[in-house]
Amino acid sequence: MNPKHITRCAQLAMMLEVSATPKPGNVDKDHDFPDITYGHFLASAIGVEPVFEKAAMSNVGAGTLIREAIEVSARWNGGKNTHFGTFLLLMPLTMAAGKGDVHQANEIVQKTTVEDAVEFYKAFKCIDVYLEDVDDLSVNDAKSIDEIERRGLTLYDIMKMSAGQDEIAQEWVRGFPRTFAGARMLAEKVKEMGINDAIVHSYLTLLAEQPDTLVQKKFGSSVAEEVSRKASAVLKEWSIDAVRLFDDELIRRRINPGTTADITAAALFIHLLEEYDETA
Amino acid sequence: MNPKHITRCAQLAMMLEVSATPKPGNVDKDHDFPDITYGHFLASAIGVEPVFEKAAMSNVGAGTLIREAIEVSARWNGGKNTHFGTFLLLMPLTMAAGKGDVHQANEIVQKTTVEDAVEFYKAFKCIDVYLEDVDDLSVNDAKSIDEIERRGLTLYDIMKMSAGQDEIAQEWVRGFPRTFAGARMLAEKVKEMGINDAIVHSYLTLLAEQPDTLVQKKFGSSVAEEVSRKASAVLKEWSIDAVRLFDDELIRRRINPGTTADITAAALFIHLLEEYDETA
Repeated sequence: MNPKHITRCAQLAMMLEVSATPKPGNVDKDHDFPDITYGHFLASAIGVEPVFEKAAMSNVGAGTLIREAIEVSARWNGGKNTHFGTFLLLMPLTMAAGKGDVHQANEIVQKTTVEDAVEFYKAFKCIDVYLEDVDDLSVNDAKSIDEIERRGLTLYDIMKMSAGQDEIAQEWVRGFPRTFAGARMLAEKVKEMGINDAIVHSYLTLLAEQPDTLVQKKFGSSVAEEVSRKASAVLKEWSIDAVRLFDDELIRRRINPGTTADITAAALFIHLLEEYDETA
Repeated sequence: MNPKHITRCAQLAMMLEVSATPKPGNVDKDHDFPDITYGHFLASAIGVEPVFEKAAMSNVGAGTLIREAIEVSARWNGGKNTHFGTFLLLMPLTMAAGKGDVHQANEIVQKTTVEDAVEFYKAFKCIDVYLEDVDDLSVNDAKSIDEIERRGLTLYDIMKMSAGQDEIAQEWVRGFPRTFAGARMLAEKVKEMGINDAIVHSYLTLLAEQPDTLVQKKFGSSVAEEVSRKASAVLKEWSIDAVRLFDDELIRRRINPGTTADITAAALFIHLLEEYDETA
């Protein structure tokens, strides 16, 4: 598959995801957060183009690509963390698409190395990420890199250690099941309701199915579960007013189901790859 | 200058221009037109990436690049005319930036050939453009191409013939004065009011300075002049309510100062080239 085509699908996925509105609790084209705006997301999605192209056409390791994407993104959007989780998902998927089959992402993550883990840890220098320590490997402690090398941990090992508390790590370890399920939802819903509403609907469905782990880390399990129950109720009613009210509530309480948005962006990438003719 | 960097500045310029809101009478991130949406603009800006890269790194003619950009854009956004005028401005500017100095755009357009004119006319096959015939060369008549060849008209000649009734053609013929002036306005205003408002302000300033020729073609000179007078009044007041009221009025009357938006996008490109470090 053409690396430029794959890259453009990844970039458009990031754009459409952040544009879809109202996407309860997240930055979208109609609302910014005080410290991070819609424009920061656009600049990041534009800036990372060379890294995605490299991912789709070369054999550079996932860890290096993720670090480079985070660094380039931060240079283009003034150091904001707009797409950390999205890059973690999109990078192996883009690499797999470049090799001809997006389903190979599973093998790609399993084959990551210690060097990938080290590169991933190096990425934390340039952005603030809300991440719990994995085992005793703090992302803010330079000694963690020595420890990773000493113990011979690959990036996949790190993800296995994080999978209990992080949905993105779970996707890595389980073969991206929710990402692919999201792509199928989008394909089905887009015909019925157009792309904006299909994204909002799929996002809410993913959120209803499983509590967002970013919300869990910041507010605890009971709040994360409450948010998922409310997403489920909003889906049942499925009116613009219900979605807006839910959005208003999450924004007011500063509850940001950002990991679910990351999975939605990755699902959109797979959907666009299938939808867009390669010559487009 | 790095062709990938130039390309990303062009793409981000297109994105930021269409995102800025409220931009009276035009599609922006808060309002779609019935037949053409914000999403169509995003898809077009993502899709044209390879054509801009080619413009910034090769010696392909301006006419071919403009035709290719229009064709690729139409494939990505479902055949909509989102960026016709923008491509006409951005293509020579991108080519010039690729050669190391965006000001060389003037020489580039002067050196266009008959082949460039023919390629430009071929572009009309895939989109609907609201364009008056130039001389007796109808864009919808296949015989025009024979006539261009017979008379040995270059793309610059065609632009000279259109300059009386078309602002984009004027920019080509006069060395892009309003585009560069727009870039200076943006650089000044962005510090004072942030990027969104700087774009809206510069767009209104350009509109106040000269009646929009797309409005002129569709509604006549007196309406185009009325719109410019109102833009001037809104600038004097410079309140969000005044901008919104003006936007509402133009949308209601279906008056779309699209050419001024094209010049704003091209001005943004020059601004971003100057603003963003090349390593970003």
